Amino acid sequence: MTSLDKLGEFGLIGRIQQTVELTQPSTILGIGDDAAILAPPAGQELVISTDLLVEGIHFDLTFCPLKHLGYKAVAVNVSDIAAMNALPTQIVVAVSIPPRFTVEAVEELFEGVKLACEAYNVDLVGGDTTGSRAGLTISVTALGQVTAGQAVRRSGAGPNDLLCVTGDLGGAYLGLQVLEREKQVWQADPESQPELSKYPYVLQRQLRPEARMDVIHELRELGVVPTSMIDVSDGLASEVLHLCQASGTGARIFTENLPIANPTLEVANEFNLDPIMCMLNGGEDYELLFTVPLADHAKLKNHPDITIIGHMVEKNEGANLITKAGQPVPLRAQGFSHF
Amino acid sequence: MTSLDKLGEFGLIGRIQQTVELTQPSTILGIGDDAAILAPPAGQELVISTDLLVEGIHFDLTFCPLKHLGYKAVAVNVSDIAAMNALPTQIVVAVSIPPRFTVEAVEELFEGVKLACEAYNVDLVGGDTTGSRAGLTISVTALGQVTAGQAVRRSGAGPNDLLCVTGDLGGAYLGLQVLEREKQVWQADPESQPELSKYPYVLQRQLRPEARMDVIHELRELGVVPTSMIDVSDGLASEVLHLCQASGTGARIFTENLPIANPTLEVANEFNLDPIMCMLNGGEDYELLFTVPLADHAKLKNHPDITIIGHMVEKNEGANLITKAGQPVPLRAQGFSHF
Repeated sequence: MTSLDKLGEFGLIGRIQQTVELTQPSTILGIGDDAAILAPPAGQELVISTDLLVEGIHFDLTFCPLKHLGYKAVAVNVSDIAAMNALPTQIVVAVSIPPRFTVEAVEELFEGVKLACEAYNVDLVGGDTTGSRAGLTISVTALGQVTAGQAVRRSGAGPNDLLCVTGDLGGAYLGLQVLEREKQVWQADPESQPELSKYPYVLQRQLRPEARMDVIHELRELGVVPTSMIDVSDGLASEVLHLCQASGTGARIFTENLPIANPTLEVANEFNLDPIMCMLNGGEDYELLFTVPLADHAKLKNHPDITIIGHMVEKNEGANLITKAGQPVPLRAQGFSHF
Repeated sequence: MTSLDKLGEFGLIGRIQQTVELTQPSTILGIGDDAAILAPPAGQELVISTDLLVEGIHFDLTFCPLKHLGYKAVAVNVSDIAAMNALPTQIVVAVSIPPRFTVEAVEELFEGVKLACEAYNVDLVGGDTTGSRAGLTISVTALGQVTAGQAVRRSGAGPNDLLCVTGDLGGAYLGLQVLEREKQVWQADPESQPELSKYPYVLQRQLRPEARMDVIHELRELGVVPTSMIDVSDGLASEVLHLCQASGTGARIFTENLPIANPTLEVANEFNLDPIMCMLNGGEDYELLFTVPLADHAKLKNHPDITIIGHMVEKNEGANLITKAGQPVPLRAQGFSHF
C-alpha cells in the first residue's frame, strides 16, 4: 500500500495518465498540460454537463465498491449527454481524496472511470486531484457532440406527443433499500454476513447504472427524433414535470403502463413498499424519458427497451397519473433532496 | 435567511439561472436542461480544464469571504485557459454545500462567480448543486477557444528561449501567512480585531487572484507567440521544472531577476521569510510563466508586466537558480502538497 502523501499529486496524475487510452478523433491533447485540446468536427454542436458525487450524500463506501463508484460517476454524466441526443466524446474528472485513501484505492476508483470510458467510447482528457478534510468527492464534466440543430431539449414536446421511457423503473431505489438494511444489520452485528446475493438485479441498478446510449443509437436507426428528452435521475414524476414545465404542456401517464422488472417488484413486496411509488419517486434509474410525435407510434410500440407510458396534453389539464380505475391523480415531485 | 432545504435544488438553480447573462456567441443554450449546447466557430480548437477548491484544503471560510471565493474559483480555471494561449468562453460550476449554509450565502458565492464571468467575458452555462456532509466544495470546469494550431503547450520550449514571468511572485503565499497569523490571534482571543488593513496587496493576491488574460491579449498585439507556457499555481520552481520536463530542456533563472512587489518584500521581512523562497515555492500567484524565442527579446524587455527571469538551456545542464554570486543551485519543486 502506498500513501498518497508519498506519491504526491503529480505522481498520481502520472500513474493515471500512463494507463489512459485516447480514441476520439476530436481529442488533440489529453492529460498533462494546463488544459486539454479538442477539435470538434465542423457541423457539430457540443453539449456539456457536470455532476458532483459526494460521500455521505450520493454514496456510502461501506457498500459501494470504488470501481463501481468510478464507473457510476461517468455513467451518470454520459446519461445527461444521451438525454440531449448527443454522443459523449470526452470527460474530465476531479477528485478530492481523504487522507485515509491509499494510492491503490484511488487507482481502483480510476479503474472504474476507465472501464466506463471504454464502454461509452469517451476519452478521459483531464482532471484535478486534491486532498479532502472529510469525505471523497468526485466531479465529472462530460462533453458530447451532436449534428448542429439535432440536440433534443426538454422544451420541445407538444400535446398528443407520446411519452416514452426506456428500460424499467424503481430498481435503483430498491437496491438502496437493500443496502441500507444490510448496513444496519452489519452495524448491529459486525460478525454478520450481508445478505446481498439474493438481489443481483436491484443492486446492479443502484451500484452500477448504465447510461442508455444504446437507445440513442437505436432511435437514430429507427429514424425517430424525440421532441423532448430528459434522463430519469430524480424519479419519473419529477422528470415528467420538468418536461411539462419546459414544454408548456400537461401529461397523462398510466399506472398500468409503468415498466417494472420482476426482481424489482419482488423486493418492493418484501419491503412493503408500493411499487408505483418506487417507480414514480425512487431516483437514480438513469433511464431516458422522451416524447415523440404520435406518428412514430408504430416504430416504437413493440420495442423491447422502450415503453409508451402516456402522452402529453394541453397545459391546463396538468400532469396526472391515471390509475387502473381511470382516476387522475396529480403528479408531484417527491424525488429525494440532496440537501 | 432562507434554508436550502426549504428552497430545494431546483429552486436554487432557478434563482441562479435568472440572474445569469449569456454573452458568448458560441453559447446556444445555458443553464436549465440536461446539458448546455455550444457551437464553437469553425477553425477554432477548444481547450478544457477543471479545478476543485475544497474547504479546509484550499480555503478557510474564517477569513475568505464567499464572494471572493466564487471569484477565485473561476479565476484559477481561467488562468489555465490563458496558459494555453486561449480565450475563455464558458464555465460550468458544481458545488456541494454543507447544511449550515443559507440560500443567501450560496447566492453570495455565485455573486463572485458572476463577477468573474463578467470580468473574463465567460458564460456560466451549467452546473450542479448538492449537499455536503462536511465542508464546501467548488468544482469549476472552463472551456476556451483558440485558433486551430495556436494553442501553446508546456512542451514547445527549446534551448536559448527566453523564460518570462508576468507580474510579481510570492504575494499570495505571504497573504496566506498574514491570514493564518491573524486567525491564530483571533482564536486565542475572539474579542481581538484582525490586523488586516496593513496588508492590502498580499491579501488581495491571496483572496482575489486574477488570471492574466490581459497579458494574453498584449502578447497577441505584440505578435509574440510563446513556445511553451504554464500558469504559476504551485510555485515558480515547480512550474519551471514542468516546462523543462515537458520540453526536454534545462533552464537557468537568475535570483536578481525574480520579480517581487515592495509590499510582498516588506511582509516577507516582517515574517522573517526568505523572499527568494517565497517566490520560488509559494503557490497561488496565478501569473503566467512562458518561453519565447530569443528574437522576441526587444519586444518584451521593457514590458511593464513581463519580466525575463532567465532562459532555457540543454537538458543535461539541468534546471538551476543562479545566485547573485553566480553560483548555480538546482531547482527543486517544494510547492505545497494538497494531500
